[in-house]
Amino acid sequence: MTRLVLKFGGTSLAGIAELENAANKVALERERGHSVAVVVSAMAGATNDLVEHCRSVSPLHDAREYDAVVSSGENVTSGLMALALQKRGIAARSWQGWQLPISCSDVHGRARILGIETKEMESRLDEGEVAVLAGFQGLTSRNRLATLGRGGSDTTAVALAAGLGAERCDIYTDVAGIYTTDPRLVPQARKLDRISYEEMIEIASMGAKVLQTRAVEMAMKKRVPIQVLSSFGVLPGSDLPGTLVTGEENIMEQEVVSGITYSKDEAKITLVGVPDMPGFAARIFGPLAEAGINVDMIVQNISQDGTSTDVTFTLSRSDASRTVEVLRQTPELTETEIRLNEDVVKVSVVGIGMRSHPGVAQTMFATLADKGINIQVISTSEIKISVLIATEYAELAVRSLHVAYGLEQ
Amino acid sequence: MTRLVLKFGGTSLAGIAELENAANKVALERERGHSVAVVVSAMAGATNDLVEHCRSVSPLHDAREYDAVVSSGENVTSGLMALALQKRGIAARSWQGWQLPISCSDVHGRARILGIETKEMESRLDEGEVAVLAGFQGLTSRNRLATLGRGGSDTTAVALAAGLGAERCDIYTDVAGIYTTDPRLVPQARKLDRISYEEMIEIASMGAKVLQTRAVEMAMKKRVPIQVLSSFGVLPGSDLPGTLVTGEENIMEQEVVSGITYSKDEAKITLVGVPDMPGFAARIFGPLAEAGINVDMIVQNISQDGTSTDVTFTLSRSDASRTVEVLRQTPELTETEIRLNEDVVKVSVVGIGMRSHPGVAQTMFATLADKGINIQVISTSEIKISVLIATEYAELAVRSLHVAYGLEQ
Repeated sequence: MTRLVLKFGGTSLAGIAELENAANKVALERERGHSVAVVVSAMAGATNDLVEHCRSVSPLHDAREYDAVVSSGENVTSGLMALALQKRGIAARSWQGWQLPISCSDVHGRARILGIETKEMESRLDEGEVAVLAGFQGLTSRNRLATLGRGGSDTTAVALAAGLGAERCDIYTDVAGIYTTDPRLVPQARKLDRISYEEMIEIASMGAKVLQTRAVEMAMKKRVPIQVLSSFGVLPGSDLPGTLVTGEENIMEQEVVSGITYSKDEAKITLVGVPDMPGFAARIFGPLAEAGINVDMIVQNISQDGTSTDVTFTLSRSDASRTVEVLRQTPELTETEIRLNEDVVKVSVVGIGMRSHPGVAQTMFATLADKGINIQVISTSEIKISVLIATEYAELAVRSLHVAYGLEQ
Repeated sequence: MTRLVLKFGGTSLAGIAELENAANKVALERERGHSVAVVVSAMAGATNDLVEHCRSVSPLHDAREYDAVVSSGENVTSGLMALALQKRGIAARSWQGWQLPISCSDVHGRARILGIETKEMESRLDEGEVAVLAGFQGLTSRNRLATLGRGGSDTTAVALAAGLGAERCDIYTDVAGIYTTDPRLVPQARKLDRISYEEMIEIASMGAKVLQTRAVEMAMKKRVPIQVLSSFGVLPGSDLPGTLVTGEENIMEQEVVSGITYSKDEAKITLVGVPDMPGFAARIFGPLAEAGINVDMIVQNISQDGTSTDVTFTLSRSDASRTVEVLRQTPELTETEIRLNEDVVKVSVVGIGMRSHPGVAQTMFATLADKGINIQVISTSEIKISVLIATEYAELAVRSLHVAYGLEQ
C-alpha cells in the first residue's frame, strides 16, 4: 500500500465548497488504494484575521500568545476535513500538532520542526484511517504551541511525509504546477513535469509563492518527492498531473535552463564614496543585520583613486526605507551620499544544467543587450544567474530570455 | 493574598473593545493585590459560526471532530486576553484545556470535568502571573479534545476555582446580578445581594441564561462562592457589586421568597382517556426518554370511572411537535386523543425560606385567583412552586406575585 501525504493550502480550503472539493481529492487517492495522511492550512483569510486581532490588542505582542491565537485556524480545518471525509464513508480523524506531538524549537512565530512522533498515527493509517493533521503548528519543550512561520504548513507536510516514509507529498495549490516562467506574463510558458530540489529552492527563494523554501530544503534533505498540483483542475487522470520536485538523479533529460523568474519586490541602494578600507563593509552591513534586514546582491566597484569606492546592494523593497534610516544613523556614513532606487526588478535564469554547460550567462547578457536592456547588478550561483534591470524592461526581458533558452511549448 | 477566578462570557468578549474592558477588570483585581486566574468563553458568535461550519459539512457529525473544531474559539480569546494583560504591564499567560490538563469524560459535546491539574499554574500564580484559561474544553483519556456543552465555560471557571481553592469565582456577564424577577417586565425588580446555591439552581434550571445549572451544582458541592456581575457597569466601587451565590448558612436574613421566574419555552400535552392501569405511565414516557425528550411537570387526573384517565404533562416548546410525533407512534396510544397547547407559560416562586414558612403556596394561589388567572398545572419542590397559566396572563401574574411577596425596591 503506497503511502501519500496530501497538503491543502488556504485557497484550497477557502470555504466549505472548496473544502468538499479537497475531500474529493483525498477520497480519490483512497479509492486508488493508497494510505493517506492530509495536512491542512487554515481557511484563506482566517490566519490574517487572527493576526489582525493580535495586532489590534497589542502591536508588540508576546510571540507565545500570538502563536496560541494564530494556530487555531488549522484546528478548525483539520476537524472539518475529518468530518467531510467521514461523510464520504472514509474513516478519518483530525490531529492537532500537540497530539502527535510535532516537537519544535521555541522560536515562536518561526519555529523549526525538531521531530514528529508518528507511531499512533501509523498504526491507524495501517487500519485504513485517514489522518488529518493541522499544519503550521508544533509543541515546544515548554509545552507551549508554536507556529512555523508563513507557509509553514508546507513544511509540516514534508516533515510528516518524511516521518511516515511516504512515497510522495502532494501539495495542492491554486496553480497547476511549476512553469518555465510566469504564464500570466508569457502565454507560451510551459508546465514542467519535473524539477530538481535545487532549482525549486532557487525559484522559491525568489518569491514564488508556490512552495516555501524551507519545505523544499527539508524535502531535499529527507529525499521526499513533492508534487505541486492544482486543487481546482479536473480530477487527475494521470498519476502525476502536476510538477514533481525531486532529486536531479530522477530527472532523465535535464534541460540546461529550467525556468526564468522575476521579482518585483526589489530595491537598490548605492553608497557613493565610502572609504576603501578593510573592515568597512562589516561596519555598513553589521547594523543592517542587527535590524533584521536581509541584503541580497552586493557589488563593490573598483576604487578609482584608491581611497574611496561605491557600494551597491539590493534588498526587499518593503525593507528599503527602514534600511535608509538605519544607514543614516551609522556613524561611518554621515558624509556618504545614499541613493535609493526602487524602480528595479530582478530577473533570474535557473537551471541545474548550467553547471556543465558554459555559455549560459553569455546567452543571457547577449539577449538583454540585443534588446537594449542595461544590466545594473549581476549575481551568480552554481545554478542561477540573476540580473537587476529597470522595471520597465521586466516583461521584455523575461519574454526574450524565455525564447532565447528555447523554453516555449 | 486572596485568590480569585474571573470568568468572562461571550458578550463580555464580543470584540476587541469589550476584551480590553474585561482586561481592565482583571487589572483592577491585580491592583487590589489579588492573585487572579481568568476563564474566557469564545467571542460572541464565534462558537455559533464554528457549529454552523460543522453542520454544513456534515449534519450527522462525529462529535470528536465537532469538539476539535468548536473548542478553537476559546483558544483565540485566551491568547488575546493574555496579550491585553501584558500590554497593561501584567505578567500573564494563556492555558488551553489540554495544557493543564483539564481531564474530562469522553462524552463529546457535553463532557463532564473529572479533574484539573493546577500544580504548574499555582506556582505561576504565586509568582504574580495571571493565568488565562480557555473555557468550555477538556482532554479525554484518549487524548482527544472534548467540549462541556453550552455554557460550559461557567463550569470550567467553578472547577478551576475549586481546584485552586479560590476565595470566589466572579462570573462577568451582561446583567448586573440576579434579580427578584425580570427587570424588563417589572421595573421594581430588585437586585439581590445574596442568593443560596439551591435557589440559584432552581432559577437557572428555569431557563435563566445567567448561570449554567451544572456550574451552580458544582459550586454548591465544592462550596465555591460565585459572584454574578456585569462587565459593562462602572468599575466596581464596592467589594461585591453583583449578586453572591453562596451557601444558605452565609445568608443572614433569608427572605421567604427570593424571586419570581417565568419561562415561555413551555408546551402542555394532554392525553385524553388513557387506561387507568399500573405501568401505563412507563409505556407513555419510556419512548419519550428514549427520544431524549425531557418532561417537566406531570399531572394525572383522578379516574372518573375507574377505567380511564387523563394525563397532562409539560415540556420544552421546542420538543413539542417531535413529542406528539413519538406519542402517535406509541402502540398503546393509537386510540388516544392527544391535545397540544403551546399557549402556556410557567411562573415559579423560588425561596429557601418557604421550607420553614407555611402559606407561601396559598399566597400564590390567592394572588392569581384574585386576578382571575386560571392555574392549569401545579408542581412544587421544597423551595419552589410552579404553575402553568395561559400566556396572556404572564406579565400580570409576575407583577402581582412580585407585589404579593413584598419584593419591590
